[in-house]
Amino acid sequence: MTERVVLAYSGGLDTSVAIPYLAEQTGGDVIAVAVDVGQDGEDLDVIKQRALDCGAAEAEVVDAREEFAADYCIPAMRANALYMDRYPLVSALSRPLIVKYLAAAADKHGATIVSHGCTGKGNDQVRFEAGLAALAPHLKVIAPARDFAWTRDKAIAYAESKHLPIDVSNKSPYSIDQNLWGRAVETGFLEDIWNAPIEDIYAYTQDPAGDNDPDEVVITFEAGVPVALDGETKTALEIVTELNSRAGAQGVGRLDMVEDRLVGIKSREIYEAPGAIALITAHQELENVTVERDLARFKRSVDQRWGELVYDGLWFSPLKKALDTFIDEAQRHVTGEIRMILHGGRATVTGRRSEASLYDFGLATYDEGDRFDQTLARGFVELWGLPSRLASARDERVKSGGAA
Amino acid sequence: MTERVVLAYSGGLDTSVAIPYLAEQTGGDVIAVAVDVGQDGEDLDVIKQRALDCGAAEAEVVDAREEFAADYCIPAMRANALYMDRYPLVSALSRPLIVKYLAAAADKHGATIVSHGCTGKGNDQVRFEAGLAALAPHLKVIAPARDFAWTRDKAIAYAESKHLPIDVSNKSPYSIDQNLWGRAVETGFLEDIWNAPIEDIYAYTQDPAGDNDPDEVVITFEAGVPVALDGETKTALEIVTELNSRAGAQGVGRLDMVEDRLVGIKSREIYEAPGAIALITAHQELENVTVERDLARFKRSVDQRWGELVYDGLWFSPLKKALDTFIDEAQRHVTGEIRMILHGGRATVTGRRSEASLYDFGLATYDEGDRFDQTLARGFVELWGLPSRLASARDERVKSGGAA
Amino acid sequence: MTERVVLAYSGGLDTSVAIPYLAEQTGGDVIAVAVDVGQDGEDLDVIKQRALDCGAAEAEVVDAREEFAADYCIPAMRANALYMDRYPLVSALSRPLIVKYLAAAADKHGATIVSHGCTGKGNDQVRFEAGLAALAPHLKVIAPARDFAWTRDKAIAYAESKHLPIDVSNKSPYSIDQNLWGRAVETGFLEDIWNAPIEDIYAYTQDPAGDNDPDEVVITFEAGVPVALDGETKTALEIVTELNSRAGAQGVGRLDMVEDRLVGIKSREIYEAPGAIALITAHQELENVTVERDLARFKRSVDQRWGELVYDGLWFSPLKKALDTFIDEAQRHVTGEIRMILHGGRATVTGRRSEASLYDFGLATYDEGDRFDQTLARGFVELWGLPSRLASARDERVKSGGAA
Amino acid sequence: MTERVVLAYSGGLDTSVAIPYLAEQTGGDVIAVAVDVGQDGEDLDVIKQRALDCGAAEAEVVDAREEFAADYCIPAMRANALYMDRYPLVSALSRPLIVKYLAAAADKHGATIVSHGCTGKGNDQVRFEAGLAALAPHLKVIAPARDFAWTRDKAIAYAESKHLPIDVSNKSPYSIDQNLWGRAVETGFLEDIWNAPIEDIYAYTQDPAGDNDPDEVVITFEAGVPVALDGETKTALEIVTELNSRAGAQGVGRLDMVEDRLVGIKSREIYEAPGAIALITAHQELENVTVERDLARFKRSVDQRWGELVYDGLWFSPLKKALDTFIDEAQRHVTGEIRMILHGGRATVTGRRSEASLYDFGLATYDEGDRFDQTLARGFVELWGLPSRLASARDERVKSGGAA
Repeated sequence: MTERVVLAYSGGLDTSVAIPYLAEQTGGDVIAVAVDVGQDGEDLDVIKQRALDCGAAEAEVVDAREEFAADYCIPAMRANALYMDRYPLVSALSRPLIVKYLAAAADKHGATIVSHGCTGKGNDQVRFEAGLAALAPHLKVIAPARDFAWTRDKAIAYAESKHLPIDVSNKSPYSIDQNLWGRAVETGFLEDIWNAPIEDIYAYTQDPAGDNDPDEVVITFEAGVPVALDGETKTALEIVTELNSRAGAQGVGRLDMVEDRLVGIKSREIYEAPGAIALITAHQELENVTVERDLARFKRSVDQRWGELVYDGLWFSPLKKALDTFIDEAQRHVTGEIRMILHGGRATVTGRRSEASLYDFGLATYDEGDRFDQTLARGFVELWGLPSRLASARDERVKSGGAA
Repeated sequence: MTERVVLAYSGGLDTSVAIPYLAEQTGGDVIAVAVDVGQDGEDLDVIKQRALDCGAAEAEVVDAREEFAADYCIPAMRANALYMDRYPLVSALSRPLIVKYLAAAADKHGATIVSHGCTGKGNDQVRFEAGLAALAPHLKVIAPARDFAWTRDKAIAYAESKHLPIDVSNKSPYSIDQNLWGRAVETGFLEDIWNAPIEDIYAYTQDPAGDNDPDEVVITFEAGVPVALDGETKTALEIVTELNSRAGAQGVGRLDMVEDRLVGIKSREIYEAPGAIALITAHQELENVTVERDLARFKRSVDQRWGELVYDGLWFSPLKKALDTFIDEAQRHVTGEIRMILHGGRATVTGRRSEASLYDFGLATYDEGDRFDQTLARGFVELWGLPSRLASARDERVKSGGAA
Repeated sequence: MTERVVLAYSGGLDTSVAIPYLAEQTGGDVIAVAVDVGQDGEDLDVIKQRALDCGAAEAEVVDAREEFAADYCIPAMRANALYMDRYPLVSALSRPLIVKYLAAAADKHGATIVSHGCTGKGNDQVRFEAGLAALAPHLKVIAPARDFAWTRDKAIAYAESKHLPIDVSNKSPYSIDQNLWGRAVETGFLEDIWNAPIEDIYAYTQDPAGDNDPDEVVITFEAGVPVALDGETKTALEIVTELNSRAGAQGVGRLDMVEDRLVGIKSREIYEAPGAIALITAHQELENVTVERDLARFKRSVDQRWGELVYDGLWFSPLKKALDTFIDEAQRHVTGEIRMILHGGRATVTGRRSEASLYDFGLATYDEGDRFDQTLARGFVELWGLPSRLASARDERVKSGGAA
Repeated sequence: MTERVVLAYSGGLDTSVAIPYLAEQTGGDVIAVAVDVGQDGEDLDVIKQRALDCGAAEAEVVDAREEFAADYCIPAMRANALYMDRYPLVSALSRPLIVKYLAAAADKHGATIVSHGCTGKGNDQVRFEAGLAALAPHLKVIAPARDFAWTRDKAIAYAESKHLPIDVSNKSPYSIDQNLWGRAVETGFLEDIWNAPIEDIYAYTQDPAGDNDPDEVVITFEAGVPVALDGETKTALEIVTELNSRAGAQGVGRLDMVEDRLVGIKSREIYEAPGAIALITAHQELENVTVERDLARFKRSVDQRWGELVYDGLWFSPLKKALDTFIDEAQRHVTGEIRMILHGGRATVTGRRSEASLYDFGLATYDEGDRFDQTLARGFVELWGLPSRLASARDERVKSGGAA
């Protein structure tokens, strides 16, 4: 039987040349799979046709935007997932979903090989392959850019020699990955980390110094899931899309950072994630109102580990699943409304209300209605400080040579 | 011998009436101690005279601003201390320093009692008393507001009956604590957490929506300590002061949050901390460039615990000391320059350079000069994903009832 | 209506005198509630009659042993709960269950007060009252030993003056708390922490230096729950009881330690927990076989926090619930058999087998059948060490004054 | 100039055949370096001569036992380093020390290549190579067993063909690594994890079921370092050696476990570490007496991470250094004496005394002399339980549909 190769297809140069190349190398049929995670580029039908024109035996396109929003972006928000306290895991979130469709296509078409276009020095190769190891451990992986050292020049030459229907003329100076949750940009001049980004590289956000009027939005959450904007019920996809647009118009969510890659190097990255940053900011404040203190403190370590795991390509790992159950339980009462002003690059919470609030006016107020019994405080304070008191007395004793 | 009481004196109504009241209650002499931590209010000599006019046996004023900046604010910045990922510990930092001067005064004057003006439902009583338990475990503490249930009305009546030289007429609606590192505001209408703050409550920051020109600043760090602004060497106090002014003019560092108090309740707080937020933001990015990944990941948990401990009044605890040694070691190479734009409420890093950088252009670049050996990646990726692969295979096997 | 007071009744001196005393103090009816958590002392009917004879308006006895085993002891084992890496939380586990029955009795009888016999310097007062705060926040608590400073002498005098039917003559020198999960002993001469325990204080375990023959046991687990011993299906209660007997006969599970109490002091404690230690040891090794590495590593921090929370009286806290969901997920595949030798104070695992094992002979063996692809290792090792390599090179460079 | 290769030489078959093989492959001179870390095998001079007889250009032997004890074993004890709560890191500790001498020899002899005998599926290759990457990043590494797929049979054939002076006749069925801190054994029949170990495989420990008399030892620590046994001052090497002997005679420190290797597989390991287990047990209890609670709780996570890092080959990493500074500070007061009974496989602490003790008899006792003020407890308990109380009330309220 003919070998079958499933290729994660983007429609771009690298994965287009991979179609005939993989066919050559493996002697098999190439099935191109393109997954729409909100990257908002070319029409899926155009991409599909291009794959076929490049020689794909079959081409599948999947509109996974709703699924991506609901099952990947929102869980990341529930984990307040900000790698290195900054980056909302844009690319890291889409890879496991693409992997899921690659594995399904391999199963459907009886393929034994999967291929992707990632290089050998980035994180995405790990996300693809660790994901495939978990979902379809029997599949072999080929990554032409890494395993056969393809470069852009080599790809262009190959495309021309094969007369592939790809326009290689106007190469963007930017290397971009984008989806519903955000957009990542790398480019040569930013590899000098002293250089500032220029306005030209942004697409999801307008200049925060622009003169837009402030935009007030009320986000409604139920059990840690955003369900409405300004009182109107919406799907996860609609909410992220609308917030990308509204927060993006205000310049919210630009990031510029040096980042620790899984492969052991540091790289410089520019991100835009207007909707993600607005949602996470709102979600954090609703947690402040509704999550008990000890749970909130421990959840920070869970959130940090969740972000590291997903960044590191371990979406399908047993630890990720167990962290998810913790987060689910912690979100049980994260229900209520957050009012937020989007303006000048800032997403600022200005009000919160919740029937599940743990904020108790009667205990908090210093005005009339105060129900807090201050006589309890002395005993609390004394015992709270007792271990430090004993340790300090010991330190003194030891310093002065006294006996126990 | 006459009993002596050391009082943490602010110059305000509550601690002024405490002077004659403590003298009455204890039959002792009251020594008023006022510590300048950059709260930037009345002249210290005026405060000193008021204490004496209220009946203090002695009054001491201490200019502790340099010490506060160098030994309290900067260590907090090195720990990126943001309680609940937001609040840079403004009040929590000044308390241990004040405690130090109270303990010293008690020692010098042979006092056996220390007194402070905190209530029984806030964090500051814990910070004062846990601090005193550590530094001067033999001292007794009296907190009139808590222990004798003083209210403002009672204080005014008492002040009038004693003809104390305090102007009680124009009461501010705001309860404020401020110092070099920031400013905290509480007020009645904000106890409804749905209400937004109004412009009137801010003093350290101008409206971020104002039309100031952007302000570019270069901050130089040596081993995690800021030592220069725009190339000019400055003390910690000068740096924080200048950044408060420059970042404050741009509206940087406003915070509005619901917060978990140590005494077990949630409260709503408004903060302004322009210099603190600018410095922490710059410091975090310089850490991104100079701190190795595993160290950076673990340091997040150290930083979180450091912030919780200090918020919770345990500045002088053995754990705090041990965390400090960790942070010291981690800061050894946090040396270099961060260029930052202050504008529109944002403190945005735009460049970083460091002789201790771990960013390696040759490993990071996708252009000419790439030295990263991509052939290493396959083995890494395979073994990285192996545990998840084995776990997934096991899950499948168990699900289908197969044997080990 | 007459006030009603629910009293946690043990049958001993302190809680017996509390019956008439609480009736006097409150002018109410006292309802005595005794809960059998396997403390294995007097007959419950005898205890009930004594409560009535002491003047209780009603007396209830609850056999909660099955529930205690299944819902408190086994969850602790699933968390490998060893406070300070040693103590399996004997007393800390029974308190929340007793609290549950106290709250239920208060509800049933319309009581507004609950009372317990704990002192003010131990952990159990916290466990009772924090538990009640969670389950029945409206109830008032009275703890006579703490709140009215009852001592043993005062209790005896009171008992005699009231002619209570309690034998106060042969006071044990030991203060003991015991239940199905273990036994805790405190006594005067052990308060000198240099003194060794004597054989006389043990009851659950025989001298480990005795000359019993070794006892081999096979424990079967399903999803982290022990379900059979030596192939015979048993309830949790039966399993813990049998292991207490068998491991106790071999001297397994004696502990002698200095411990950090929640109230801020250190105390010296002797414990015996033969069944608990045997079960936890077996469970840990089955986890080693069936739980993936990253999950196992993170679970250690979850387990530690779980143990601290339960020790600290926060069984009913939101964090405890969330940690439980994590543990549940982590136990999904902890299924299989552990063979163990009980002998000479040791519980030694000698074999493990599981259909859900992650141990893969083909990957582990160095003999024939080795399927591990060693060519993958070089790439893994190189990238694994890359961050340390870059950091070392940086350190050298900085030391020698070189440029970046 | 002739290439020079530094080889980590053990004197065994694998590294002996590597001498001529490396010379052939590289055309260079081989310098054999053997490091004595207490493995207690052949005489170092014999090993040296064998290296020369096998064709080494030079052979160096280093007695590193004192250094290994003081700078590697004792730091591990201070971290209570037990990987997976069990394994005291025997092999993982010696590798970085050997690496240090390899790097020094390479420097001295101008070598550009380093070689070791590890396979590609174990941890030790990582420890060697990650260590070398840190200490001598310019050196190339060759691991014949891994990189050229050497097997035992191939090695024997090669040895015979070259007439190497190695006795290949009586192959032990065991694969052993041992040093001062313990001994690791792997062997074919134990790769079936249901098989129990047999007495024959142990060398450092006698059968714990033997009938030795108990052995009481008093260990003196200063700032977390053991400095005397039974009152007699000794070096670290003397202390570990003597405890290996005395605890080994009592069968202390046998371990049998399934373990998570860094390369992603589980393996089954048998260890003996009598001195290590005795020392760690004593050290933990002295920490219980002298380390403040919050510090002790956080130190557990530091200790766990320390053990993982060292197991994972990252001894020379920046994080390891920072954890060490934390541990140093935490050990400042770990000074005092632990009395311990070694018997029947158990190392049981029976007494502890310390001038730096935080155990306060006056606070702990229930007898005369009690100084604990129980009136403080009520306030403490109330505020301690307040967050759970509020959360429970909220849960009820939400469940019943009530408003905030």
